[in-house]
Amino acid sequence: MSPEGAPQAGGSATGRRLRVGVLGAHGRMGAEACRAVEAAEDLELVARVGRGDPLEVLEGAGVEVAVDLTRPDAVMANLEHCVRAGIHVVVGTSGVDGARLDQVRRWLAASPRTGVLVAPNFALGAVLLMRFAAEAARWFPSVEVVELHHPRKADAPSGTARRTAELVAAARAEAGLGAAPDATETALDGARGAVVDGVPVHSVRLMGLVAHQEVLLGGQGEVLTLRHDSLDRSSFMPGVLLGVRRVGRHPGLTVGLEHYLDDAPGRRAP
Amino acid sequence: MSPEGAPQAGGSATGRRLRVGVLGAHGRMGAEACRAVEAAEDLELVARVGRGDPLEVLEGAGVEVAVDLTRPDAVMANLEHCVRAGIHVVVGTSGVDGARLDQVRRWLAASPRTGVLVAPNFALGAVLLMRFAAEAARWFPSVEVVELHHPRKADAPSGTARRTAELVAAARAEAGLGAAPDATETALDGARGAVVDGVPVHSVRLMGLVAHQEVLLGGQGEVLTLRHDSLDRSSFMPGVLLGVRRVGRHPGLTVGLEHYLDDAPGRRAP
Amino acid sequence: MSPEGAPQAGGSATGRRLRVGVLGAHGRMGAEACRAVEAAEDLELVARVGRGDPLEVLEGAGVEVAVDLTRPDAVMANLEHCVRAGIHVVVGTSGVDGARLDQVRRWLAASPRTGVLVAPNFALGAVLLMRFAAEAARWFPSVEVVELHHPRKADAPSGTARRTAELVAAARAEAGLGAAPDATETALDGARGAVVDGVPVHSVRLMGLVAHQEVLLGGQGEVLTLRHDSLDRSSFMPGVLLGVRRVGRHPGLTVGLEHYLDDAPGRRAP
Amino acid sequence: MSPEGAPQAGGSATGRRLRVGVLGAHGRMGAEACRAVEAAEDLELVARVGRGDPLEVLEGAGVEVAVDLTRPDAVMANLEHCVRAGIHVVVGTSGVDGARLDQVRRWLAASPRTGVLVAPNFALGAVLLMRFAAEAARWFPSVEVVELHHPRKADAPSGTARRTAELVAAARAEAGLGAAPDATETALDGARGAVVDGVPVHSVRLMGLVAHQEVLLGGQGEVLTLRHDSLDRSSFMPGVLLGVRRVGRHPGLTVGLEHYLDDAPGRRAP
Repeated sequence: MSPEGAPQAGGSATGRRLRVGVLGAHGRMGAEACRAVEAAEDLELVARVGRGDPLEVLEGAGVEVAVDLTRPDAVMANLEHCVRAGIHVVVGTSGVDGARLDQVRRWLAASPRTGVLVAPNFALGAVLLMRFAAEAARWFPSVEVVELHHPRKADAPSGTARRTAELVAAARAEAGLGAAPDATETALDGARGAVVDGVPVHSVRLMGLVAHQEVLLGGQGEVLTLRHDSLDRSSFMPGVLLGVRRVGRHPGLTVGLEHYLDDAPGRRAP
Repeated sequence: MSPEGAPQAGGSATGRRLRVGVLGAHGRMGAEACRAVEAAEDLELVARVGRGDPLEVLEGAGVEVAVDLTRPDAVMANLEHCVRAGIHVVVGTSGVDGARLDQVRRWLAASPRTGVLVAPNFALGAVLLMRFAAEAARWFPSVEVVELHHPRKADAPSGTARRTAELVAAARAEAGLGAAPDATETALDGARGAVVDGVPVHSVRLMGLVAHQEVLLGGQGEVLTLRHDSLDRSSFMPGVLLGVRRVGRHPGLTVGLEHYLDDAPGRRAP
Repeated sequence: MSPEGAPQAGGSATGRRLRVGVLGAHGRMGAEACRAVEAAEDLELVARVGRGDPLEVLEGAGVEVAVDLTRPDAVMANLEHCVRAGIHVVVGTSGVDGARLDQVRRWLAASPRTGVLVAPNFALGAVLLMRFAAEAARWFPSVEVVELHHPRKADAPSGTARRTAELVAAARAEAGLGAAPDATETALDGARGAVVDGVPVHSVRLMGLVAHQEVLLGGQGEVLTLRHDSLDRSSFMPGVLLGVRRVGRHPGLTVGLEHYLDDAPGRRAP
Repeated sequence: MSPEGAPQAGGSATGRRLRVGVLGAHGRMGAEACRAVEAAEDLELVARVGRGDPLEVLEGAGVEVAVDLTRPDAVMANLEHCVRAGIHVVVGTSGVDGARLDQVRRWLAASPRTGVLVAPNFALGAVLLMRFAAEAARWFPSVEVVELHHPRKADAPSGTARRTAELVAAARAEAGLGAAPDATETALDGARGAVVDGVPVHSVRLMGLVAHQEVLLGGQGEVLTLRHDSLDRSSFMPGVLLGVRRVGRHPGLTVGLEHYLDDAPGRRAP
């Protein structure tokens, strides 16, 4: 049985396979998603949709869940079509945020049994790291984030590191923690990192690296370190499949895969 | 405000300080606990009990919570006395397990509003690491534990590493995970570590180290690493104080500090 | 200018490009070597030899250095041919050890200006790690090795970890160091790792990993850790190119790329 | 036999013990040095000099090597006295740099058989890390430094991290390496660290930490990481003793313990 909690954690009691369609099926991520769906015993790939293909093939093929791995300029039209047709959607395409999320909520209001999952990161390790960091943050006076990436990356810090720092800062505020102790008097510019909501974030760029993140939490006489190493885009696929299996049990809009993690096998809907 | 969640997370709405007694007050850990209680604004150290001192000083001083940092041959008599007197107890002394726990439960049955906390490890980072490891274990096909200690340690693996492996193994079993992938055909004796409930555990012993533990969780294209470094016995004190503040809200026997961590500020008893 | 010390650290003063042939050019490693040679400004790829091709194409093309990335059953015939023809050889094929090395030495005795480099590992980081570990070993009472690989690996410990432990053990013996301190009295089988020449070696096998190694050296109050992460086979290419550039300056047989590292730009032969 | 290479690597062929005096014997570091000298079989502690004590006790006691662990305002007078008396000196006191080193050289010119060692860091692991980092730097396109300390530290980066970055930068320049690859286009202020001679340096300040440093070197498909953890001031003592044993074989001024490391047992002076 798959560690990603496949059949027992979703799917159907009758053994019927969930019918899945992939939008952006000919892109790099889309092609990988097609392979992953085909390899999953409880899923059936019934539609591969490329750019220019009519979206009606989804209904024609009886798709229950669509995976959108297209582009920021295509994803909203896809979402509107699917939600109107009552097809659940798992969105891995970037750029669905801010006002776009409000738009999705409005579409969903008219289709209250449909679920949409928008997730900035599908790597389960990255999602768990963020959750654990926020959970641990309230117990430690000190916290800093170090993210390390290949040198072709254009932004620093990474989006995941910013998000992690924001979550950590919110947890600290809720627990009533003040500023972390820091007696630095003289520092070279940049030595203490960027500050995101009060949390120092350091960005390393190095040939040979892929995508890595560490959260260091320090208290009296002890340090807790949470680290995630992502070595390959294939790390997204277990999270995408998890989303596909569970989106049907979460009507409405969900932002972040972490909200699906607590669907324990024993707690699933009938 | 202390990051260990001091007053806001326990204490009293009226600002009255909790009256604390320390048993084993002249030992190394006990002396440190006395200092920690004295330094906490919401706690008042009203009794320091050494070997041979009559336990009645506890009631005499109006102790509400006792901290036991004595020895395996003294702790049970202390527990019996306190529970009968309705004094809550936080136990950091080792050796309270198996049949001894049953005995404590019987004493508590006759004093149903009294709480006893027995914790094998008070370092918050170690407690959180175990919790996170168990939570993450169901999501990853592979998991191994590496613990690293100073070379004066007599046992391998450490008690904490064994306990961590057991918790991880239980979480894997509950999630329906089978054995981790491992194609090893030829191995030197010991290379793949000790196996605790199916989880490989490796013990490093090195001058310069203190007490450290890593849990490595691996999935497709990604690794999540949880690491705890304990550099100093003072790392136990925030956990001891947390126990002192919260034991009164947990009548009966609790084994493991992790069960107190979810007492969020907003969920405390009136 | 390439960090691998390309033209300035070898090559030719006249700017003439070194003529290189690749044996096993159609295999995975061979194809990568062809690309790397073609991309190097100071090298010229003049022969790609596949299985069944006559070796005489090497002389025909004026090859000065051959790179052998074939198979254990082919490499010896290739070596005999090249050494007789006075062509230097860089060998990345496995299985050239023991009596085979003696055979190569005999062939070289008859061709004293020809150089052959046999290297078990061409990743510069791995080679440097082994060197540093041996250099540091004499200064620290404690040392252990942890190697971590993907779970498809058949042997434990890895060949590199064994070799590292042997080098470390030799350096300790030369420095007059006795056994590392270790007070372990009770241990689960395997907890303290495999023992290679007195050095504990621990092998982790985990999905998501590629090939990683750590050497931990401990002394009074301090720990020095050397770690190498190899995420991709492309990590071999800079070392292969270094070998190609320098093999001509090292007549006779050299085992291990580390022996070439001290050819500093200023120390090269005229 | 001590791993720090004790008697065999220095001392005397006759078994006579080296006569050592400690200046600043009542300070924290001085007291620790006294204990370390007393515990060494090949050394004899014959003078403990405190503030206000006349320096002539050194000659009176027949001191051969003095260890200065006093204060910046006292160390120069001590050095002048010792060098004139032909007593070798190992200096652990800070503030001996710049013009002060020139002054020491002038004193030594008049006493050509006397040796003085001034070392900014006596932890062998830290000294080796700097050496290895400089040695490795020429082989990798990318390099960054991360140093991590307790939050009471006043400066960022640490002196050791700055010195490491300078050594690494010099090695890169000598090897003809250009700037490390870095495609960062948009960055929060400070995210990419402080830049020391072109090398990014990141400073983490965290409760629970002591003093730690990592050098990350990246090349095609691989990363080499060198890490030093200093958990205790006692980590300085093996280096101090090494200096004491070897300073007599290095007449004149030596800055940095690394220059003594290659005195292999077999290469010592007769």
